[in-house]
Amino acid sequence: MNRRMILYILGTLLLSEAGLMLLPVGVDLYYGEGKFASYLITIAIILVASFIMTRFKPKNKTIHARDGFIVVSLGWIIVSFFGALPFFLTREIPNFIDALFESVSGFTTTGATILNDVEALCHANLFWRSFTHWIGGMGVLVFIMAVLPLSGGGGDLYLMRAESTGPDVGKFVPKSISTARILYGIYLALTLFEIIMLLIGDIPFFDSVTLSFGTAGTGGFGIKNDSIASYSPYVQGVITAFMALFGINFSLYFLLLCGKFKDIFKNEELRTYIIIMLTAIVLISFDVREFFDSGLETLRYAAFQVSSVMTSTGYSTTDFNQWPDFSKGILILVMCIGACAGSTGGGLKVARVLLLIKDARRELKRLIHPRSVNVVTLDGKRVKDEVLRSTNVYFYLYIFILAASMLLVSFDNVDLVSDFTGVLTTLNNIGPGLEAVGPAGNFSVYGWFSKCIFIIDMLFGRLEIFPLILLFSKKPKAKKHI
Amino acid sequence: MNRRMILYILGTLLLSEAGLMLLPVGVDLYYGEGKFASYLITIAIILVASFIMTRFKPKNKTIHARDGFIVVSLGWIIVSFFGALPFFLTREIPNFIDALFESVSGFTTTGATILNDVEALCHANLFWRSFTHWIGGMGVLVFIMAVLPLSGGGGDLYLMRAESTGPDVGKFVPKSISTARILYGIYLALTLFEIIMLLIGDIPFFDSVTLSFGTAGTGGFGIKNDSIASYSPYVQGVITAFMALFGINFSLYFLLLCGKFKDIFKNEELRTYIIIMLTAIVLISFDVREFFDSGLETLRYAAFQVSSVMTSTGYSTTDFNQWPDFSKGILILVMCIGACAGSTGGGLKVARVLLLIKDARRELKRLIHPRSVNVVTLDGKRVKDEVLRSTNVYFYLYIFILAASMLLVSFDNVDLVSDFTGVLTTLNNIGPGLEAVGPAGNFSVYGWFSKCIFIIDMLFGRLEIFPLILLFSKKPKAKKHI
Repeated sequence: MNRRMILYILGTLLLSEAGLMLLPVGVDLYYGEGKFASYLITIAIILVASFIMTRFKPKNKTIHARDGFIVVSLGWIIVSFFGALPFFLTREIPNFIDALFESVSGFTTTGATILNDVEALCHANLFWRSFTHWIGGMGVLVFIMAVLPLSGGGGDLYLMRAESTGPDVGKFVPKSISTARILYGIYLALTLFEIIMLLIGDIPFFDSVTLSFGTAGTGGFGIKNDSIASYSPYVQGVITAFMALFGINFSLYFLLLCGKFKDIFKNEELRTYIIIMLTAIVLISFDVREFFDSGLETLRYAAFQVSSVMTSTGYSTTDFNQWPDFSKGILILVMCIGACAGSTGGGLKVARVLLLIKDARRELKRLIHPRSVNVVTLDGKRVKDEVLRSTNVYFYLYIFILAASMLLVSFDNVDLVSDFTGVLTTLNNIGPGLEAVGPAGNFSVYGWFSKCIFIIDMLFGRLEIFPLILLFSKKPKAKKHI
Repeated sequence: MNRRMILYILGTLLLSEAGLMLLPVGVDLYYGEGKFASYLITIAIILVASFIMTRFKPKNKTIHARDGFIVVSLGWIIVSFFGALPFFLTREIPNFIDALFESVSGFTTTGATILNDVEALCHANLFWRSFTHWIGGMGVLVFIMAVLPLSGGGGDLYLMRAESTGPDVGKFVPKSISTARILYGIYLALTLFEIIMLLIGDIPFFDSVTLSFGTAGTGGFGIKNDSIASYSPYVQGVITAFMALFGINFSLYFLLLCGKFKDIFKNEELRTYIIIMLTAIVLISFDVREFFDSGLETLRYAAFQVSSVMTSTGYSTTDFNQWPDFSKGILILVMCIGACAGSTGGGLKVARVLLLIKDARRELKRLIHPRSVNVVTLDGKRVKDEVLRSTNVYFYLYIFILAASMLLVSFDNVDLVSDFTGVLTTLNNIGPGLEAVGPAGNFSVYGWFSKCIFIIDMLFGRLEIFPLILLFSKKPKAKKHI
């Protein structure tokens, strides 16, 4: 383990966070709400920590796979920790666990909140909440990487792999730094596009920026207590479309830029993503048709909620906890499936679900013909056995974490549906669940212990389990019987 | 596919069912309740069907893996179908879907019921309900095999594999027929032992036999509306112990008979099974301590419920739906884990959970050291990769079926906890769930469509998914890209 290099990268990461915190300072000065001191104090604390960590320049810049996982895990934890300070110091979230919950929920793009009254926050805090979504969406380390190469050798690729979503991560172009730049370029362009589209809908600039941050990161923190419900149908429509767009693998946008339309149409994950989303919208529209006045209105509400929940954004325009069980069941299902790999969205990812189904089919064939050779392919290419294996293991670690977390939060005796969907919504980085944690509720009903569990689940969800587990496991010997 | 041989085996199976139905006829004659005609009519119908099916003796007695799965799937379906006729013909369950639900619930050893008043049934029907548990527990085809060899070549082994529980099934002795005889011998001896122990507790002979059938098959149909609650603590204690005993792999009893005590102690699955069961009892006892008068009473109730639910029996001595969420969560968890492989119990099986955990650990190691060689072992022996693969696939097919079933039964809009635990309890062959389908409720709240889904889930659970899926899949080509 290259301790010095790990510390150095983490220090650089904090330096960037301090820089990004200048933006809410500007917001506060503009609105003249006098909360900037809390941000300046936080920036000072971060700079001191960063200075200590980057004091010893590492001689050896090489990091290995395990180091990459450790950097990413620790990076997200410390960034969230310092990101919680402004909420705490402004006294707007006086309990530190609550502030940490809000910060982790922001960076992991979950959007679950412990606040009963979001509108009581100052503009700086509202901005920072939404901005953490945007930073966390594409990854905090990928962000730095877009600016400077962090590590020599294959180190940057390890970092990128550990932070990106989906079962198998490649590079578009040979250099990791160029890939990171392209990714962030697309991300920024799409976000700007959404801001403009929202401004056309005649909403305040502050609203359009914060809502776009929340959509881009598939986060879900709104700036109003009723989330998106009070905005016009046009604005809701724009957000519906952009939520779906940010749930698509970003490498497809790169292919689009290169003019490789054929490769986009051939993409199995995209096809499946669209099919699942449309099916869910149709089924729910049919099920809730009596809740709304017209067919078009029903479709609009169903589309918003499905797009929001499947991409793990978590905005809402209606309290879907009041819908019939079947619609709630569909929502739970698309919550679990989630968005595409390589997007900012959470959940299991469509690609993993596809691989699991294909692997199941192969196994069933093998049961009948033990000696037959069956190959699993995705987009016409053979999927490596190691990718399939890690997808399998990912799936059951996911289920184990779900079960264990549910058990631990059930101590608060809220109710089983809140417990289950609360864990589901944090582990999949969505935001609202059902019952007490539904769109009309929030996580303040749970005690501090459960909140800590939810915090861990949000990190598990965003970092896709493996890095965090490796952080707490001992370095294994190369050869050992399990 | 050897169609003639499949028909011949199925015909033989029906012949055995007709023979076994003579027992409830005897029960009815003894109690003089005048319901025996319904049984005799059923026997006549079965005999006609059996005669037609066995008319053409197959020249070629060889069957292959796929045939084995088909025989087992079809076998269970037709045995359940004809087994439902007496309930229907006696008019005690006037709706045929309900009668089929009860029969499938019996043979699959689930023990879930649609009856509001069990005590209103005649003795013959009560006996038949419990007897189906006993027949289904060890397997209907293994039962025939114990009497006569069904097929040449490796055919019997295929049948046995398709019907037995757990990830990997071997034979104790070279011949399948001898293995089947040993299995049934142990099964019968343990059942008789329980009957005697219950008789010592001074309960009626009829009660001791039916309750023992329900315990042995880990079924759970009682003959009283409050299940086991009105029996003495001694009787409850005996049943607690025997439920746990029938949840153990029967090959361990064979080892016990052979005096190989060392191998029993080395058995990882048994150790894990005991540890999980004791942990669950302790945790629940602590959580529900205020519900009962003394520590001993708390422990007794906790032990009964855990033993019942983990072995998938489904008897109850208290309405655990009233317990706090944490205890309910623990019960849901042990419901999923289930009993040992090669027992009469349901659930995922402890061996599968063990393999999944070990596989996850191996994969995590491989993430750090891509070139390291790690071997998964169970009881000190290397586990074949194909067993691990099919365990993985089993697990996610299980989750898929759970999710899909939950969605389908949610149409009835009962409530999400009933939907979820209803599917869980039928898929794991347990019996009671929570809320509407809790120990104090039953499945009559659901419509016919949901009941059909539950029927399919019970069969999926008992036959461990693969055979039923293969029944409905086309014969694949030997080489094909998926």
